[in-house]
Amino acid sequence: MEPADVGAQRIEWTKENMRLLAGIRQRFEVEQPFTGLTIGVSIHLEPKTAVLLQTLRTGGADLFATGNLGTTQDDVVASLNREGIRAIGRRADTPEEHLGNVARIAGSGLDLVLDNGADIIAAADDQRIIGATEETTSGGNRLRSELAERVGYPVIVINDSPLKAIVENQHSVGQSVVESLQRITNLMPQAWHLAVFGYGWCGRGIAHYARQVGASVMVVEPDEIKALEAAMFGFPVRSVEEAIESAGVIVTATGAERVITADHIDLFQPDAILANAGHFDVEIDVPSLAAAAESRVEIAPGIERLDFGDGRSIRLLTLGRMFNLGGVSAKGNSIESMDLGFSLQALSLERLALDRSALVPGAQPVPDDINRLLARQFVELIGG
Amino acid sequence: MEPADVGAQRIEWTKENMRLLAGIRQRFEVEQPFTGLTIGVSIHLEPKTAVLLQTLRTGGADLFATGNLGTTQDDVVASLNREGIRAIGRRADTPEEHLGNVARIAGSGLDLVLDNGADIIAAADDQRIIGATEETTSGGNRLRSELAERVGYPVIVINDSPLKAIVENQHSVGQSVVESLQRITNLMPQAWHLAVFGYGWCGRGIAHYARQVGASVMVVEPDEIKALEAAMFGFPVRSVEEAIESAGVIVTATGAERVITADHIDLFQPDAILANAGHFDVEIDVPSLAAAAESRVEIAPGIERLDFGDGRSIRLLTLGRMFNLGGVSAKGNSIESMDLGFSLQALSLERLALDRSALVPGAQPVPDDINRLLARQFVELIGG
Amino acid sequence: MEPADVGAQRIEWTKENMRLLAGIRQRFEVEQPFTGLTIGVSIHLEPKTAVLLQTLRTGGADLFATGNLGTTQDDVVASLNREGIRAIGRRADTPEEHLGNVARIAGSGLDLVLDNGADIIAAADDQRIIGATEETTSGGNRLRSELAERVGYPVIVINDSPLKAIVENQHSVGQSVVESLQRITNLMPQAWHLAVFGYGWCGRGIAHYARQVGASVMVVEPDEIKALEAAMFGFPVRSVEEAIESAGVIVTATGAERVITADHIDLFQPDAILANAGHFDVEIDVPSLAAAAESRVEIAPGIERLDFGDGRSIRLLTLGRMFNLGGVSAKGNSIESMDLGFSLQALSLERLALDRSALVPGAQPVPDDINRLLARQFVELIGG
Amino acid sequence: MEPADVGAQRIEWTKENMRLLAGIRQRFEVEQPFTGLTIGVSIHLEPKTAVLLQTLRTGGADLFATGNLGTTQDDVVASLNREGIRAIGRRADTPEEHLGNVARIAGSGLDLVLDNGADIIAAADDQRIIGATEETTSGGNRLRSELAERVGYPVIVINDSPLKAIVENQHSVGQSVVESLQRITNLMPQAWHLAVFGYGWCGRGIAHYARQVGASVMVVEPDEIKALEAAMFGFPVRSVEEAIESAGVIVTATGAERVITADHIDLFQPDAILANAGHFDVEIDVPSLAAAAESRVEIAPGIERLDFGDGRSIRLLTLGRMFNLGGVSAKGNSIESMDLGFSLQALSLERLALDRSALVPGAQPVPDDINRLLARQFVELIGG
Repeated sequence: MEPADVGAQRIEWTKENMRLLAGIRQRFEVEQPFTGLTIGVSIHLEPKTAVLLQTLRTGGADLFATGNLGTTQDDVVASLNREGIRAIGRRADTPEEHLGNVARIAGSGLDLVLDNGADIIAAADDQRIIGATEETTSGGNRLRSELAERVGYPVIVINDSPLKAIVENQHSVGQSVVESLQRITNLMPQAWHLAVFGYGWCGRGIAHYARQVGASVMVVEPDEIKALEAAMFGFPVRSVEEAIESAGVIVTATGAERVITADHIDLFQPDAILANAGHFDVEIDVPSLAAAAESRVEIAPGIERLDFGDGRSIRLLTLGRMFNLGGVSAKGNSIESMDLGFSLQALSLERLALDRSALVPGAQPVPDDINRLLARQFVELIGG
Repeated sequence: MEPADVGAQRIEWTKENMRLLAGIRQRFEVEQPFTGLTIGVSIHLEPKTAVLLQTLRTGGADLFATGNLGTTQDDVVASLNREGIRAIGRRADTPEEHLGNVARIAGSGLDLVLDNGADIIAAADDQRIIGATEETTSGGNRLRSELAERVGYPVIVINDSPLKAIVENQHSVGQSVVESLQRITNLMPQAWHLAVFGYGWCGRGIAHYARQVGASVMVVEPDEIKALEAAMFGFPVRSVEEAIESAGVIVTATGAERVITADHIDLFQPDAILANAGHFDVEIDVPSLAAAAESRVEIAPGIERLDFGDGRSIRLLTLGRMFNLGGVSAKGNSIESMDLGFSLQALSLERLALDRSALVPGAQPVPDDINRLLARQFVELIGG
Repeated sequence: MEPADVGAQRIEWTKENMRLLAGIRQRFEVEQPFTGLTIGVSIHLEPKTAVLLQTLRTGGADLFATGNLGTTQDDVVASLNREGIRAIGRRADTPEEHLGNVARIAGSGLDLVLDNGADIIAAADDQRIIGATEETTSGGNRLRSELAERVGYPVIVINDSPLKAIVENQHSVGQSVVESLQRITNLMPQAWHLAVFGYGWCGRGIAHYARQVGASVMVVEPDEIKALEAAMFGFPVRSVEEAIESAGVIVTATGAERVITADHIDLFQPDAILANAGHFDVEIDVPSLAAAAESRVEIAPGIERLDFGDGRSIRLLTLGRMFNLGGVSAKGNSIESMDLGFSLQALSLERLALDRSALVPGAQPVPDDINRLLARQFVELIGG
Repeated sequence: MEPADVGAQRIEWTKENMRLLAGIRQRFEVEQPFTGLTIGVSIHLEPKTAVLLQTLRTGGADLFATGNLGTTQDDVVASLNREGIRAIGRRADTPEEHLGNVARIAGSGLDLVLDNGADIIAAADDQRIIGATEETTSGGNRLRSELAERVGYPVIVINDSPLKAIVENQHSVGQSVVESLQRITNLMPQAWHLAVFGYGWCGRGIAHYARQVGASVMVVEPDEIKALEAAMFGFPVRSVEEAIESAGVIVTATGAERVITADHIDLFQPDAILANAGHFDVEIDVPSLAAAAESRVEIAPGIERLDFGDGRSIRLLTLGRMFNLGGVSAKGNSIESMDLGFSLQALSLERLALDRSALVPGAQPVPDDINRLLARQFVELIGG
């Protein structure tokens, strides 16, 4: 097998397990909903997204795609280009180069946009655009605030779909966080004594799956109603300080900033393990912890020891970044959960292409009938 | 111990385990929020509600209470009256007698109302009323429709509180349904092959706890999003017909009418067990099943056999009524869950007494701060 | 329905759910393995055992049965006699009357014995006896010690079968203990903070099922290997004193005597609930606790409060006797688990009748092929 | 950090989490039980075993070690030698070179042996040997058969300890198998529809943990008693053929040979995933499957597709070898479970060194007091 095929090979396994997209692809091949339309794409470029792009192309779309900063998989880009899908960007791109890629796509004459963080939407002045999808909540927020007045076409915010909350945030993130904690640390769950910070969708999945594999789990959650839910499912609810003082492993999934900081150095258990599962790497305040440390050494792949003197030290996983996406061989969320998320993308783009008059301008959730159709298909797919 | 004390004795065990109300009683004793106020009460009269009435009385209220039709526990009524709480009604009351009791209370000059089904509110014309609480969702619906224009004072609908959904509907009903199924049938959960109809708050609790004790559980749920949640928690999702054809035990918790009817007679497993956990006894269409039956015989306490000929037969639990409240020694929801629900009542009535100007007229949910206060206290109570 | 039929009615529901015995009965009807043989029986007389006796009779046996002291259900005895199965003994029998019943059966000319505690075996001198089954472990111990030299025929000890340990001791006792704790106390499992004393077959079932319904569970187990198993399944392992000091509910299942005594009075949590699940009522030392108490009052059916002064008190369930067999409407182990146990009885008696030469004299376990046959049939019965 | 330190770095994380060995090392440092003794070692050489060797050396032992064929981690060997522990062997060794290494150690004048498969014991004629430990069951079998007459000194078979069965085989293998299945396939457990072949210690761990993370799991187990245990824990029990026809994922853990062969090709689900968790790579008959395949292609790291024509194909993980030890970044059993197993080694070797007269010659289990001591310490280590 030639080196050039590595990307294609990696896409193959993923592709055969994205069965919702396979069904959509089959239909798109016949119906060609995107004939004559150019879709500008900004998305993390790896095997799962490649299958989405192939699906859109099968539906007749002309595609022009760039990856996200620092995560682009070069073999996948190469493979896409070989298939006739225009993809630009390299893992080694500087922020300036990345912005240049986004601008190049934004200015290339687009009919539809598949966006991430509303980057293309913000950069494009194109009057041709008839609609867009936006993958992220933060992009959705941007569309409802700073960009609200500028965007005259419908933008479907994929992450607002309840299917994402259920399948991806709760179950798939929970599963991959627990798998990653085992993989990176190689420690036995029975000995974790884990504090999960945050009992939102992600937090409850993490707490659930960690307990399922044998860990004892406590929860930190300031919202009284969510805390009640945690307690009723048998999780002790603790204050921030109680949790830090008693937990051997701390996982943050709050969506908030600076949940764990240098202020807590005197409270940590000896050798406490700190790991962040939140989207942004700001929940564990690594700068303040690092500034307070006498030394910071990598003691195993993905594991750093920070020593604060007087026997106080912590173990920090994957630099405080989403650790279920970090470390050797991390694969992130399961293929099926991404299949579902990208099917929301494909059907939302199809709706924009074919029936945009039924949609209002501006940010909006995935149409209810698309949610229900895909929920039903997904249940059939995984069902007994 | 004299017979007259049986009610008091039964209240005692309940009372010592209603710890939220105990704390409220202690405060009410000092603060006397209900001084000079008469509260008209319509509520199921049994040990747990007796503790609520004692709490209101400790807070200075003059009480005048009647039970619900057919469920009043006479020893509890006797015991209440001995303590100076006016309570009327007998288990043996006819519908006419019951309406008479409600009317008598409605017409007796009330300041506050603790209602059930909005019966007193509908019957009272009293201009003195400053506010009310309503226990049920159906009472809330009535207040928002037919009574909406007539009621000029605030009515706090207790059952709209998220605390009820979480603690009572999901967990406590789930636990008591599963306990009751074991108690009434004496069958081993491993052999149940259970179909839960409905994956709302109650249904998900039932499905969860049944699986926890060893049953294999499938779910019937037409709403695609709820069905997805069920599937992600590992429950096979089946159509009505598939479920009826394969389930050994069927439990309904849909809130809908005539979910199981005589139309399904040819589909049932031999000796299928049918049980209703929904609030009203209309989910299993007992009249149509009974009309189609060649014979109907009680074969064990709370268990009837209906034979349809040709070897077709079912086992019906507790006449199709809420079976976790039926059968010998059924005690319904746990004491703690009722403690929480009645604390919502007590604090809502206090709010109406002391701070009604902060409330709008008409039906409304429990004030958020009361929800949060009680959620926090309940977590402390059950917490590790 | 006439009063006389109450026993028959209660047997009916049980009978239709004892499906292994139904299959055996069908075969016995044709093969008549007990033709011409009289079986003397000492067994707890209630609906489930009645079905066993009917099965033996269908196989051609002449039966003469007595119940255990104090547990005989008079309606079942009446019903058996109406069917032509000789049964004697009343619930109200004194110990002397009970011994008289046993002696009467032992002396009546028996070919086979179905014994409980080796009572008939010890009393019978009959040279006619060709073999016996013994239900209990303590009867088995007696047969291997004091009675070892006297018994020249094979005695199959049913309780030594691994099927009993798995189905009855672990799962069915665990399920019924947890169900009974909910039923008797009406308290929410989330608030139990339960200490299980003993992690043998029964203890691990109790710990497992209690946690499954929402309780937090700790285990007390002096054997280091069993304690390791408990810890690996996530149960905190505590010393006797640690457990008593921190548990809200204590359940004993140790097989030992005086596990909880008056020596622990200063350690109990306020209002701690004490319950025994062990076979004998000696695990909680009720006499020493009662002697130390200032008062002892029943505060709810099956619940006594013992006050020791200075605010120290406990709640004792069902007098320290097996509480899953006590309290209103307790039904003990599930019908299916008893079906399995009694099928071991029926097939062991058949083996003794037809093939005793293949068996050695004295106490011995259930023949391996019978265990395997019934295990396979039971799996089919409950299987998916 | 210099390249030479990579091994030392990888040992460091492992070492700080092997806390039982840390305690033993502390004691050995003072007591020097192995002073003047040479220990010959044959063991998989990786970070965890390195910590064991360091512990023995701290106790005064002179060590001479070789790895197993094909699994030696060269950086660990380098690191050991730098620390003064003689270690030989390379990952790239041929079978002949490996046998030469074993022979060299066997002939070097040993006092104690830490063996794997009884390789050194079989090769050594040394009269100096006072005792040995053997890690594996297959080595134990060899010592009880072909080597039984030749070995005049005690050999403690570590794998016969109940602690290994509980902690390592059941829980740790179960956890690592499930983690590896997620890691290698990136598929969502909810969609696995998993058949576990074998319900021994490993099989029950795999079945349990797979279900815990969301999979639906069936079990194949010919032994009726084990099958009953599986059914009582809610696992459908299926025949080999039924399981193969309905499972999407098949995991073997039987200890038997050729469980899945080319005879089953017509039965597999489309794209069935086959994975072996048994010690030897003979459970899935890869040679017969490969011979029957039209093509065999690696479609993702650790995943091969075998096509049999007519749309029939399977996905084979890690060549049919123990897949929880295969694939990128596999780390095998948890550090704590290995800490326990190697503490059994260290204390058994100490017993042989100091108190061999208390031991009989030949193969024997770990002394009971050592099992109990370590069980107690392990419970304390992981306990709440």
